[in-house]
Amino acid sequence: MKYPESFLKLVEDFKKFPGIGKKTAERLALFTISTLDKEQVSSFSEHLNEAKENITHCPICGTLMEHHCPICEDPNRDKNTIMVVSDDKDVFVLERTPIYHGLYHVLGGAIDFSRGIGPEDLNIESLFQRLNDVDEIILSLAGTVEGELTAQYLKELLKHKGIKVSRIAYGIPVGADLSFADDHTLELALNNRQKYE
Amino acid sequence: MKYPESFLKLVEDFKKFPGIGKKTAERLALFTISTLDKEQVSSFSEHLNEAKENITHCPICGTLMEHHCPICEDPNRDKNTIMVVSDDKDVFVLERTPIYHGLYHVLGGAIDFSRGIGPEDLNIESLFQRLNDVDEIILSLAGTVEGELTAQYLKELLKHKGIKVSRIAYGIPVGADLSFADDHTLELALNNRQKYE
Repeated sequence: MKYPESFLKLVEDFKKFPGIGKKTAERLALFTISTLDKEQVSSFSEHLNEAKENITHCPICGTLMEHHCPICEDPNRDKNTIMVVSDDKDVFVLERTPIYHGLYHVLGGAIDFSRGIGPEDLNIESLFQRLNDVDEIILSLAGTVEGELTAQYLKELLKHKGIKVSRIAYGIPVGADLSFADDHTLELALNNRQKYE
Repeated sequence: MKYPESFLKLVEDFKKFPGIGKKTAERLALFTISTLDKEQVSSFSEHLNEAKENITHCPICGTLMEHHCPICEDPNRDKNTIMVVSDDKDVFVLERTPIYHGLYHVLGGAIDFSRGIGPEDLNIESLFQRLNDVDEIILSLAGTVEGELTAQYLKELLKHKGIKVSRIAYGIPVGADLSFADDHTLELALNNRQKYE
């Protein structure tokens, strides 16, 4: 017996998501059909399109935003500090703890020559256009080879700008993504940040 | 900082699915926004509605179907054997192995007095309307208290009908759902089914 066509399409869609294999995708598709009611499915379907259409990247810092950037347009944030992260999701991860109150800059990745990603592919130029009035740049990049390389590269570029450059401390497990760190590790890592020499 | 409103809605939707907690839901929502392109999201959104609208339960056996029941309307299936399962998803699980060629009957649950589910809440009456020309009923219910109770109940009802009643063998791990069994266990469990005395 073959699965119904509409069911197979849905399984394929679920399989596109990270960490979802064939079996899980089938379970999610069956749950959609059998357990969720029509209204729940149709609002899920609407929310997918809404989120994709309404959420954009802030043209200044690259944070995901809807209508207004929640960081750049917040008058209470410290405009003299910019934290550099590689991914838009890292901003949300860091904002879970109320410890950081400055601005962000999302690079959109990290230097990775093995995959052909050089500095020119990242939002580095736009960072340099934001350096007026900035006292400190905090590099919060992953503890991976690529994150380290990107941090070194930025440190070199920023060396002669008269700005303090610091790096989030190695509370982040080496080799792991920011998003897997728990809140406490993030807080320690931020408190113990060290001036980049 | 708060997550954008559309993003939060999407996270809530993902959290409704089994096995998806807050952190995973956030990862899936971020993946939707950042990695999938607009076309992929809109086709996912369409497929959700399509599957929910087009897929129904077969009025005879209760299998999930789109337009036609792939089991009841297949002339090659053995019409003299009916396998009774509790959930519509169990049919798909069993159909993964090409070992069974009879018909199915989906009960839509199992007797569970602690949750107020009695025999009258299951598709048992419709099973009894299908017994003409049937030689064997195979009870493929989960190895749980509820599955066992339901099997006993059906066995008692079927005792005087002159039909062989068998039960899928305990290859299924006791206490587990059918959908977690691997193909080989399913095959063994089916081959070793025993006449219900």
